[in-house]
Amino acid sequence: MDLKSLKINRKRLQESLDEMAKIGATPGGGVQRLTLSDEDKQARDLFVKWLKELGCEVTIDEMGNIFGKRAGRNNDLPPVLSGSHIDSQPKGGRFDGILGVMGPLEVLRTLHENNVETERPITIVDWTNEEGSRFAPAMVSSGVWAGVLDRDWAYSRTDINGKRFGDELERIGYKGKIPAKKRPLHCYYEYHIEQGPILEKEGITIGAPKGILCLHWYDVYLEGEANQVGPTPMEGRHDALCAAAEMILKVNQLPDRMGGNMVATVGEIQNYPNSRNIIPDKVHFTVDIRSWDDDLALKAWELLRKDFEEIASGRGCPIKIEETWRVEHSPFDKTLVQRILDTSSQLGYSSLRMVSGAGHDASYMNQITPTAMIFIPSIGGRSHVEVENSTWADCEAGANVLLHCILKSANEI
Amino acid sequence: MDLKSLKINRKRLQESLDEMAKIGATPGGGVQRLTLSDEDKQARDLFVKWLKELGCEVTIDEMGNIFGKRAGRNNDLPPVLSGSHIDSQPKGGRFDGILGVMGPLEVLRTLHENNVETERPITIVDWTNEEGSRFAPAMVSSGVWAGVLDRDWAYSRTDINGKRFGDELERIGYKGKIPAKKRPLHCYYEYHIEQGPILEKEGITIGAPKGILCLHWYDVYLEGEANQVGPTPMEGRHDALCAAAEMILKVNQLPDRMGGNMVATVGEIQNYPNSRNIIPDKVHFTVDIRSWDDDLALKAWELLRKDFEEIASGRGCPIKIEETWRVEHSPFDKTLVQRILDTSSQLGYSSLRMVSGAGHDASYMNQITPTAMIFIPSIGGRSHVEVENSTWADCEAGANVLLHCILKSANEI
Repeated sequence: MDLKSLKINRKRLQESLDEMAKIGATPGGGVQRLTLSDEDKQARDLFVKWLKELGCEVTIDEMGNIFGKRAGRNNDLPPVLSGSHIDSQPKGGRFDGILGVMGPLEVLRTLHENNVETERPITIVDWTNEEGSRFAPAMVSSGVWAGVLDRDWAYSRTDINGKRFGDELERIGYKGKIPAKKRPLHCYYEYHIEQGPILEKEGITIGAPKGILCLHWYDVYLEGEANQVGPTPMEGRHDALCAAAEMILKVNQLPDRMGGNMVATVGEIQNYPNSRNIIPDKVHFTVDIRSWDDDLALKAWELLRKDFEEIASGRGCPIKIEETWRVEHSPFDKTLVQRILDTSSQLGYSSLRMVSGAGHDASYMNQITPTAMIFIPSIGGRSHVEVENSTWADCEAGANVLLHCILKSANEI
Repeated sequence: MDLKSLKINRKRLQESLDEMAKIGATPGGGVQRLTLSDEDKQARDLFVKWLKELGCEVTIDEMGNIFGKRAGRNNDLPPVLSGSHIDSQPKGGRFDGILGVMGPLEVLRTLHENNVETERPITIVDWTNEEGSRFAPAMVSSGVWAGVLDRDWAYSRTDINGKRFGDELERIGYKGKIPAKKRPLHCYYEYHIEQGPILEKEGITIGAPKGILCLHWYDVYLEGEANQVGPTPMEGRHDALCAAAEMILKVNQLPDRMGGNMVATVGEIQNYPNSRNIIPDKVHFTVDIRSWDDDLALKAWELLRKDFEEIASGRGCPIKIEETWRVEHSPFDKTLVQRILDTSSQLGYSSLRMVSGAGHDASYMNQITPTAMIFIPSIGGRSHVEVENSTWADCEAGANVLLHCILKSANEI
């Protein structure tokens, strides 16, 4: 057959996604499939069943990562790997993660029913705990597999109820025996929803991120002076929440001040004693800065830190700043990114070279093998919410691009 | 004897306060004596023991309010009532409340050892749950006694662990049989620390508040749009926390804008989903406005509300505002306030007519009988914290003023 005309089966892809969306379905139309929960187990079981029906060799490693391998002509060659994650945010959406697992599954099904052989084996992966919302941090199991994070440290992570990652992995029956250790790969593709508004706004079907933005996390702690609000005049107050409010607005104005090309956000705040008639004396908040330009992000932070110190001193609220996490921007493999753009255009889909603002398992894979991602539009740019959505036409388009990119890579010798 | 030269015993007052401060003492030098806790019971038992040693007639009503009555020459005359509360804030101070119970106790001891008779009976009261920090709202039992709040509603209030006020009252053995219902009073004096910095700053010993400020409470709810921070450009964001930050600063600037004579505070904020990499989509915060001038407070609120609506609309964050509570300013009895000032001056203490920014059990008493309060300086203006402090000389001065005010009122026929 003419491989160029090969297409995935949209109806079958949709049915698989619909079937998965039933597991942990929420009343608001999303899914809640927290990592290592009963719902995660149920979805894993279904995924493994589907892999076996295709004749894939299924292995589970000691981090619970599930690999499904379709043999190639030459199984000594390192495989093409493609995957994402089955777990979701609490009250998350029906596409984040699972699209990147059902997408390559549909690719294998398409190859299978058309009796298409490839030179290299093709492996699908479900990475355990990408979200990090039950057990922090995110992307922990691809991190262990890539050799960046430590397995026993990952096992010891606890959820809000004090349950250990390692125990929960065992409880759901997915603590495998095979070491979670990187093995030679030919390349890695991750298919994912954009989780931002750009593709939809530009009317583009396929996004090919040139890489992942740098990420700077800071934790800011302010001290004020608690007093009863009624008897304490405005003058002489040391209100930690007012200091935080000024700082939050500085963070919000930062990208504009730096001329764009970055985002800066305060997502989390804790206020103490958090009582309506007591002046706040302790505030903690987070700062998240992302940019393609590492230097710009650092310069921005230096400006911001000066602002913070001035505000803190002006309000008599001592400040402590922790530089919690810094990851440099991570450029994907140029050849693979170009392949995604070319393949899109050959298939008649519009495409855009862009950036990924969010981290993905692809970040760790990018450290050990040529890596790229395929994005499709998120309706309204929404994700991590129940209303997260993408059109079936776009899901189909992304899977077709994935199919032909995998085919090309799997036939490279 | 010459009543005019009568003085309380500072050492004995200090010893009683020290004894009480041991019950629920915190490592930071404060006390934690939450209402209806074991510590509350222990302090009540000690108070009742001391009342009985003085020959007072002790009664406990169905709200757990403890009354200790020292007979007068004519017990058909309504008594002079003086008291405050034994309970404390979590990690509260050694003076708030208890000073207003140990103060009149010291007055009775002084009268007792000097064989001073009065025309009217004198009653001391410990009002249950003034703080409202374990069971909301505050001042609940003086409210029930004054006929403003409902007993069974108060019984049904629950703490953070779901325990009911009524059950806990019974558990510690202080659910009395006598109805918690107002009876004729001649007048009410409450002796209390200032809980603000004014007396200390002005170098004044005795404060005589002309009344309690008006109090307006608002609850503000903002909606934004939750999105992953990385892939979501700054433009087009609907960040509910940024909207709240702008509003918090408007609240902070309000008193200055209105020309002073008021305080305005945001003490409490909740942010959702409160995750460092998700744009906040729900924020709730409180606004507390207090002034002696009810109209000024209302005008200020109208301005603020307009600001809030503009900010909300500018950021595309729908706003909902609840007007949670409004209490008009409450002027105390002019004769009694003047008596406190005159008595201070006769005793050689400096004094100041001021206002009370905080609510007290005196607020409810003021609705049913001539009422006034005696304030002494709070060091650094601090209260509701472990470092809350006042000098023993000031504690003595306040108790002497209380002694002579009570004497005058108790001898009025």
